[in-house]
Amino acid sequence: MKDYNLDKVIRKIQDFPKKGILFYDITSIFLHPDAFNWIIKKAKSIYKNKKIDLILSVESRGFIFGSALSYELGIPLTLARKAGKLPGETIKESYSLEYGEATLEVHKSDIKNGQNVLIIDDLIATGGTLKACANLVEKLGANVAGIFGVIGLPFLNYDKLLTGYETITLINYHGE
Amino acid sequence: MKDYNLDKVIRKIQDFPKKGILFYDITSIFLHPDAFNWIIKKAKSIYKNKKIDLILSVESRGFIFGSALSYELGIPLTLARKAGKLPGETIKESYSLEYGEATLEVHKSDIKNGQNVLIIDDLIATGGTLKACANLVEKLGANVAGIFGVIGLPFLNYDKLLTGYETITLINYHGE
Repeated sequence: MKDYNLDKVIRKIQDFPKKGILFYDITSIFLHPDAFNWIIKKAKSIYKNKKIDLILSVESRGFIFGSALSYELGIPLTLARKAGKLPGETIKESYSLEYGEATLEVHKSDIKNGQNVLIIDDLIATGGTLKACANLVEKLGANVAGIFGVIGLPFLNYDKLLTGYETITLINYHGE
Repeated sequence: MKDYNLDKVIRKIQDFPKKGILFYDITSIFLHPDAFNWIIKKAKSIYKNKKIDLILSVESRGFIFGSALSYELGIPLTLARKAGKLPGETIKESYSLEYGEATLEVHKSDIKNGQNVLIIDDLIATGGTLKACANLVEKLGANVAGIFGVIGLPFLNYDKLLTGYETITLINYHGE
C-alpha cells in the first residue's frame, strides 16, 4: 500500500484545551476523503487476517474510525461510552485523568467470553483510556487482539501503560 | 434493494433514561454487520445522485452512521459537537431540551458558502437537535440538502419543526 502524508491533513491548534497544549485535531482528516479512505484501508490491511471478532471503539472520536472499519471489514462494533450513556446493563471501569477521574462503560452482553477484540481510538496519549477499555474487555473474559490509534504521542509513554498489547498507530508526534 | 427488518436488531429498553420512556437502542445495530451494511447501502442509494458536498453528523451516535456513509460515498464529513469539544473556531446554536438548553457547535471553516450539506443523526424525535444543525448550516451560507435519521419518532412531531427540509428515516416507531 502506498504511503499517505497524514500530517498534512491533521490540523494543529495551539493552546487547546488549555495554554501550552498543542492539540492534534483529527476532525480535519474527515474533510479529506482520500485521507480517511487511506486510514481505513491501511487498518484493514493490518487486521483483516487477525481473526478479530469485535471492534470496541471509544467515545466519541474513536467511533468515527471504528465505524468505518467495522463497515469495511464486516465485523461487529460495540462502544465504550462515558458513564450513564449506555441504556443496557453495563460494566464500568474508572481511570485517572490529569485532574480527577473518568469512567467508561460497555454493554455487558455485547462482549463475549473468548472473543478477540480490537480496541480503536483516534489518538493514544497516556494510554489511560485504552487501558481502561482493555480491562473491560478482559473482565468479560474476552481477549485484546490489538489496540489501534491513528495518532500516537509516544512521549507521553503509553507504551508503558499498554505493555503486553500490540499497539499500532499510523503517525506519531514527538512533543515540541 | 431488498428490505431489511431493522426492528429485530434495535434493542428496546424500558425506563431509560427515566421511568416511562421506551428507549430505542441503536447500538445493537452495530453488532449485526448485515444490518449496518444495509443501512449504509440504503442511504447511499438515496443520496448518491443528490450532489451532496458535505455530511454533517451529530454527536455522538450520529458520528457512527455519518462516518460509514462518508467513507462509502467518498464525501467529506464534519461534526456537530457539544459546546467546548471542537478545538478550532466555531459557531454555536442553542436549542431547547425538555429541561433547559443544549448548545451545538461546528467548525466555522469546515462548512462553506453554497455547499449542499446532508445532516445525519441516529434518531429523530422532536427534531430540536437537527433544527439547530440546519440553522448552523444556513448561518454559514450553505444549503441543507437533506436530513437523515435511521429511526424516526413521528409522534413527537419532528415534521413540524423540520418543515421545508427533506427528512428521511428508515424505520418509524409510533409510541406505545
